[in-house]
Amino acid sequence: MEMEKIVTLCKQYGFVFQGSEIYNGFANTWDFGPVGVELKNNVKKCWWKRFVQEDPKTYGVDAAILMNPRTWEASGHVGSFSDPKMDCKKCKQRFRADNMIEEFSNGEVAAEGMTNEEMEKYIADNHITCPNCGGFDWSEIKQFKLMFETSRGTVEGEKDTVYLRPETCQGEYVNFLNVWRTTRAKIPFAIAQIGKSFRNEITPGNFLFRTIEFEQMELQKFCKDTDSMDIYADYKKRALEFVEDMGLPADKLRYHDHDKLAHYAKAACDIQYKFPIGWEELNGIHHRGTWDLSRHSEFSGKPMEYLDPDTNEKYIPTVIEYSIGADRLTLALLCEAYEEQTLEDGSTREVMHFIPAIAPYKVAILPLIKKNHSEKAQEIYTELSKYFMCTYDETANIGKRYRREDVIGTPFCLTVDDETLNNNTVTIRDRDTMEQITLPLDEVKNYIEEKIRF
Amino acid sequence: MEMEKIVTLCKQYGFVFQGSEIYNGFANTWDFGPVGVELKNNVKKCWWKRFVQEDPKTYGVDAAILMNPRTWEASGHVGSFSDPKMDCKKCKQRFRADNMIEEFSNGEVAAEGMTNEEMEKYIADNHITCPNCGGFDWSEIKQFKLMFETSRGTVEGEKDTVYLRPETCQGEYVNFLNVWRTTRAKIPFAIAQIGKSFRNEITPGNFLFRTIEFEQMELQKFCKDTDSMDIYADYKKRALEFVEDMGLPADKLRYHDHDKLAHYAKAACDIQYKFPIGWEELNGIHHRGTWDLSRHSEFSGKPMEYLDPDTNEKYIPTVIEYSIGADRLTLALLCEAYEEQTLEDGSTREVMHFIPAIAPYKVAILPLIKKNHSEKAQEIYTELSKYFMCTYDETANIGKRYRREDVIGTPFCLTVDDETLNNNTVTIRDRDTMEQITLPLDEVKNYIEEKIRF
Repeated sequence: MEMEKIVTLCKQYGFVFQGSEIYNGFANTWDFGPVGVELKNNVKKCWWKRFVQEDPKTYGVDAAILMNPRTWEASGHVGSFSDPKMDCKKCKQRFRADNMIEEFSNGEVAAEGMTNEEMEKYIADNHITCPNCGGFDWSEIKQFKLMFETSRGTVEGEKDTVYLRPETCQGEYVNFLNVWRTTRAKIPFAIAQIGKSFRNEITPGNFLFRTIEFEQMELQKFCKDTDSMDIYADYKKRALEFVEDMGLPADKLRYHDHDKLAHYAKAACDIQYKFPIGWEELNGIHHRGTWDLSRHSEFSGKPMEYLDPDTNEKYIPTVIEYSIGADRLTLALLCEAYEEQTLEDGSTREVMHFIPAIAPYKVAILPLIKKNHSEKAQEIYTELSKYFMCTYDETANIGKRYRREDVIGTPFCLTVDDETLNNNTVTIRDRDTMEQITLPLDEVKNYIEEKIRF
Repeated sequence: MEMEKIVTLCKQYGFVFQGSEIYNGFANTWDFGPVGVELKNNVKKCWWKRFVQEDPKTYGVDAAILMNPRTWEASGHVGSFSDPKMDCKKCKQRFRADNMIEEFSNGEVAAEGMTNEEMEKYIADNHITCPNCGGFDWSEIKQFKLMFETSRGTVEGEKDTVYLRPETCQGEYVNFLNVWRTTRAKIPFAIAQIGKSFRNEITPGNFLFRTIEFEQMELQKFCKDTDSMDIYADYKKRALEFVEDMGLPADKLRYHDHDKLAHYAKAACDIQYKFPIGWEELNGIHHRGTWDLSRHSEFSGKPMEYLDPDTNEKYIPTVIEYSIGADRLTLALLCEAYEEQTLEDGSTREVMHFIPAIAPYKVAILPLIKKNHSEKAQEIYTELSKYFMCTYDETANIGKRYRREDVIGTPFCLTVDDETLNNNTVTIRDRDTMEQITLPLDEVKNYIEEKIRF
């Protein structure tokens, strides 16, 4: 399955459109369409249910995107969150020098540790040309800031730079004391958040894989340092279970433990999924030590300490972070769900095998013959749509309508025919097996609710 | 009920914290805490259910916040979306000149139509002093842009200003053709969205009422011009029904029809709620004519026309907009829900009378005696939290725990006692009536699910 094909399919059926498409787009932004928004919302709901609703020791927050700029000094982003960029003087395109070196050397040279001068020398020595125009006329390397900057401007003459947050987790750290105080939670406990972050990436995006604006689902677990490695191991396990339960198969998932660690960390790990572009990071689990809360204590002057009510011990908690991109996971699920099937009669069908919990529509209500059955079908639509997302389609023949539902992943088609009018029964067709069963109308709601549970 | 009191209560119980509080905040931003995030998410879910899920002719989207800047030229924001601001040269604070004039004149002078020079003259003639320091040393009036600007910077030397969207609806307009094509919908149909917008407001915020970053819930209905006034009237009705169903009483809601209309509009109306700060806009219903799609046709060169499949008529649809702020509605619901009750025994309790559908937690699981009942209670928590948000509390005496749940608006408290261990029954206490009933454990899930339905 090529990424190009997924992009086309997403556009064709209303999953994802290019951002600002009528204005020839806006690089690395995407708009979710009518079925895409339901899919992504369902992904977010499943995550929240699993990690917040069903976990008595996890508390949600929804922090503002625009934060006091001191936050990003404490986090270190203001000083060091940048990529080395070079401009091609011929075509004026901008590139990441480190990426160019790594691609040129097939990953054998790790540009990460090189200085700007070393990178410039490597590019010159190896005559690496512009990927866009083939030219060889480079500017010098400069550090390109990854945080989008804006300014507030409420006080005259004052330059007050404000940043779009490049990560959501700072919203949890700065609220650690507030959440602890209001929930009276005992450590270990976690704060979770789903929200947008922004990074001014130069890198090509690979569709939803890397975008300048993306939604993170993540939690920060605050714990005693002596418990931290057990909690880290536990989230590695739970993170993998979650993506498997969402429909990603075990043989296309793997752990990738990091060799290089930040000075404050004891461990770090990604879970990778085999995307069409290769094995790539799907989510991360990171041991962050006491770094984050210590820095915020230092920069804010507010001690971010926990007082153990049983032992009277006072300490800065260690943080285990578990983070997954909602857009990236949605992309993985789109790639995984898609199948082009050859049927027994030699025809083909395109089908999205989403688990029912994340399917955009749970059931399509289809009157067999418009003239005779649409009134009853609409009545059923009105009733069932009180409980879950339904769609209604009365155009074209029934086979064609089944195909339309298959490709957007609707797990069930409910056909209304004479039997419905006479006996109050409907047929329910299963998307994956294409088998049909007959059900009394008043059992349909429970039947589907059972099937779509996560 | 004073706004100050709501702010304090929200902070105290984990509804809303000041944004970046440990850094002395960041003006007009707020972070939703553990119960606040659930409340706001429930508000958004109810809106989406009512206007998207239950409406066969409304389709959702989730468009990017960062759009191609041409969007904001077409919409007119680049040219004219600004406020007249003046700086106090003494204390350096920045103010809106129009607001100062309107406040000074008790609303009798409409500054909206005045030029900068006229406003300067009025302020000088009437010797209006600085609200902050009392000084009278004003800068000249300048137009202050309300869109936050940032820049993308992927092409060398090019100044590429990008804006944080000041309204979500442009995401629907630019996707009109995409949604129409992929859904095969016939007019009239609507495109709906929930998402964040940003405005660099100078105005004081009044807590969640006006924030620089806010979440809109809105839909754009595309229709034939001849049907547009009926559709407008229909949304006026539905918008009012919605906020009443959310728990706002009819006598604190009113329509406010606009006298002055944009040149392209046939009608415009707000629904106002009686906030603690007075009657203020809660949501708007606007007839927008063919303005938006016409402008995007002109600026993009892509004709935003609908082809009627029955009549073969080709036309630019008229738009009816219905928009409501998620934060502002949440604020109204917080103000409305709060009550300080004097009980029969003379004691008082604070209670939030949220409708069960939006309450942060649906049920609190309370073991009567920790030692004896907590194991069973935790078992019940684990089971029920598969279906809805529950909370668990085993500390303090039962009366105190009831009070804690009352003030965060938990509609039901489930007490686990010896009867639970012996007969599998629990007591369910109603938040509002404080009456208790006994229920078999296996009926609890359905009992609560019925009560929390929206």
